Amino acid sequence: MINVAILGYGVVGSGVAEVIRKNSRSIAQRAGEEIQVKRILDIRDFPEGPDSSLLTKDAEVVFGDSSIAIVVETIGGAGIAHEFTKKAFSLKKHVVTSNKELIATHGPELLKMASENCVSYLFEASVGGGIPIIRPLNQCLAANVINGITGILNGTTNYILTQMRKEGRDFSDALKSAQEHGYAEANPTADIEGHDACRKIAILSSIAYNEFVDCNAIYTEGITKISVIDMQYAELMDSVIKLIAMSKKAGDRIFARVSPAIISKGHPLSNVEDVFNAIVVKGDVIGDAMFYGRGAGKLPTASAVVADIIDIVRHFDSYGNNSWPRKDYNNLIDISESETRYFVRVKTRNTEEARKFIRNTFAAPEFLFHIRQEAEGELAFTTEKSTEAELAGKVDALKGIGAIKEVVSVLRIEEE
Amino acid sequence: MINVAILGYGVVGSGVAEVIRKNSRSIAQRAGEEIQVKRILDIRDFPEGPDSSLLTKDAEVVFGDSSIAIVVETIGGAGIAHEFTKKAFSLKKHVVTSNKELIATHGPELLKMASENCVSYLFEASVGGGIPIIRPLNQCLAANVINGITGILNGTTNYILTQMRKEGRDFSDALKSAQEHGYAEANPTADIEGHDACRKIAILSSIAYNEFVDCNAIYTEGITKISVIDMQYAELMDSVIKLIAMSKKAGDRIFARVSPAIISKGHPLSNVEDVFNAIVVKGDVIGDAMFYGRGAGKLPTASAVVADIIDIVRHFDSYGNNSWPRKDYNNLIDISESETRYFVRVKTRNTEEARKFIRNTFAAPEFLFHIRQEAEGELAFTTEKSTEAELAGKVDALKGIGAIKEVVSVLRIEEE
Repeated sequence: MINVAILGYGVVGSGVAEVIRKNSRSIAQRAGEEIQVKRILDIRDFPEGPDSSLLTKDAEVVFGDSSIAIVVETIGGAGIAHEFTKKAFSLKKHVVTSNKELIATHGPELLKMASENCVSYLFEASVGGGIPIIRPLNQCLAANVINGITGILNGTTNYILTQMRKEGRDFSDALKSAQEHGYAEANPTADIEGHDACRKIAILSSIAYNEFVDCNAIYTEGITKISVIDMQYAELMDSVIKLIAMSKKAGDRIFARVSPAIISKGHPLSNVEDVFNAIVVKGDVIGDAMFYGRGAGKLPTASAVVADIIDIVRHFDSYGNNSWPRKDYNNLIDISESETRYFVRVKTRNTEEARKFIRNTFAAPEFLFHIRQEAEGELAFTTEKSTEAELAGKVDALKGIGAIKEVVSVLRIEEE
Repeated sequence: MINVAILGYGVVGSGVAEVIRKNSRSIAQRAGEEIQVKRILDIRDFPEGPDSSLLTKDAEVVFGDSSIAIVVETIGGAGIAHEFTKKAFSLKKHVVTSNKELIATHGPELLKMASENCVSYLFEASVGGGIPIIRPLNQCLAANVINGITGILNGTTNYILTQMRKEGRDFSDALKSAQEHGYAEANPTADIEGHDACRKIAILSSIAYNEFVDCNAIYTEGITKISVIDMQYAELMDSVIKLIAMSKKAGDRIFARVSPAIISKGHPLSNVEDVFNAIVVKGDVIGDAMFYGRGAGKLPTASAVVADIIDIVRHFDSYGNNSWPRKDYNNLIDISESETRYFVRVKTRNTEEARKFIRNTFAAPEFLFHIRQEAEGELAFTTEKSTEAELAGKVDALKGIGAIKEVVSVLRIEEE
């Protein structure tokens, strides 16, 4: 019998208790031992419900109990969760978490501390909810050198973009619908500004390239400026707009980015709709492999936590943590150095003059003809592939001429 | 330093040697130890090439060498490969294989023997080539009760069906193209008749449901009778035709089937094209998760073998084999008892009379109107959901009436 304590009885924490109760028989079969939740720590009161007898507000009840071998940290954030995690390691307790903020921020130190104490620190649930991705990256792809990762890592924004494209709703309308369905929080900033996806690509990249990728250094752009008209232009290009989180290896450095991007309908990510997530991993031997599923939700995320618990129980004496060394040089390529193509949309005062200026500024602009374009005095085009610094300079130049009233949209075209 | 021997220097075996050589550094990092190929057994001569010094024709050179801890069996078939696998276990050597025939046929006994000898028997490469699926099924989904699996598990047939649909080629033409591209063997029977997909769904089902699913008891139908016209009808239904391997749990029994099926374009498998494979797993907690990638090929398959080797090295002393008990009752539901909908296409002598008979025979047939239908004296319709026995009886009745010249096609509609 293995005793587990859960720290934080919120959505994920209560889900973990529920899954362990619900599937206890099959879990015992897979783990080789019975697993039970012995204690749940939360400062709130939950007088009703199936776990009420396990709840305590006193952390010592958990940490002072040497029969508790595994601690599930589902508090979130990098405050008290950080303290509790370190305390658990110092007491030789294994820790399983869904806390992407903590692992993305303090990963290297926490993983080191876990290994020094001969315990595991596992975090499958921090990325992709129910999609098994971290373990495949670590193990199944172990024979590959990973060259790149491209993913749709946030269900809220993917739901919003799907609503905009399929139903023609504008952003704020689609966001409202996401909130009504419980897919977006009252304060949706972390999702719609791309911060959530950023932490996830930082974690996946740290695993894939075996070095720490700092989420604070990743260029991150959200979806708040995307319009239905941009989507119609994407459609003309036989493409869709998705919030793409990507990273790739380039020599001894890494490029990572989170931003909306235009991707072709032939790309495996283009069909990932609604709250679903998907991750394409590029291995040197395997080629492209994709993992797809619900990226969030109480039970899928809880399921990932429980899978980590089972893994620890199966291999109790052979902990094997990632190590993400912090490089002593800046290992991330700045966005300005990276190469891409742009889609640009402008409102004009003088369309012919604007078109001429664009032709003279960009090497080979390809103009797109939207049915409502002339009426609105609008030009839209795609650029050549070039560094972001160069393209941004050229876009700035557009803003300085009289024939152009406004640069409405600038979107990257993701080709990998 | 861990020593490995490879039995069988064919496509996969030589790929394993190549991957271990190519990525030795990252493999050592993941495994925690260096891994080297010490011996390769093959009865053929390979005087040239990078591995020639390792080759031997004498099995005793491998089995008599106690420094060889892991044996890779890439011989294939259930003959000598079976003998060598048992011999390796008896000498306490771990075995990694890509041999789906052997594991699908003798899985329960071999897994038992491995466990009795405290070694691992791993076979990630036997299903889905480079797609990590067996480890996710075993571990990541450990917290779930698996209720069903639906997949496109054979790249050759998926390539052929894609060619037929996209290029309008007929079956034999598309098969020829597959052979020219190296996607189909000179004798393509195992692929086009569904036997390969059948072994794979048997293996996945045995893992998912924790009991032996015998591939010989699974209803299996290939793609040789599919025509481009059937595909055009599927298109009218906003669907495509795929070779679907599926299984699901029903009480204490299992239903499994391999057959061409019509699936809606909304189904995640509908976009899986060319030689790609994909597997949808239905968990009670996680919901649907999909795994997608190249299902075959020298290096992707070798990559899966090497991942298993690394897994053994990482957890040397904690083998954990599946156990697939053989049930003492027939655990498979017969195809005749299973429920489905059919698509049926007939050539008529008297279209009006035929239509009337169909209306009287099937509860609520939905007729499909193909642009070339009247010219050809053809009727196509979909049936209600019913047992296969009942539907087959009704289709037989069609064959018996004068107004119908021929029942050209009967295809299942896969709705899950």
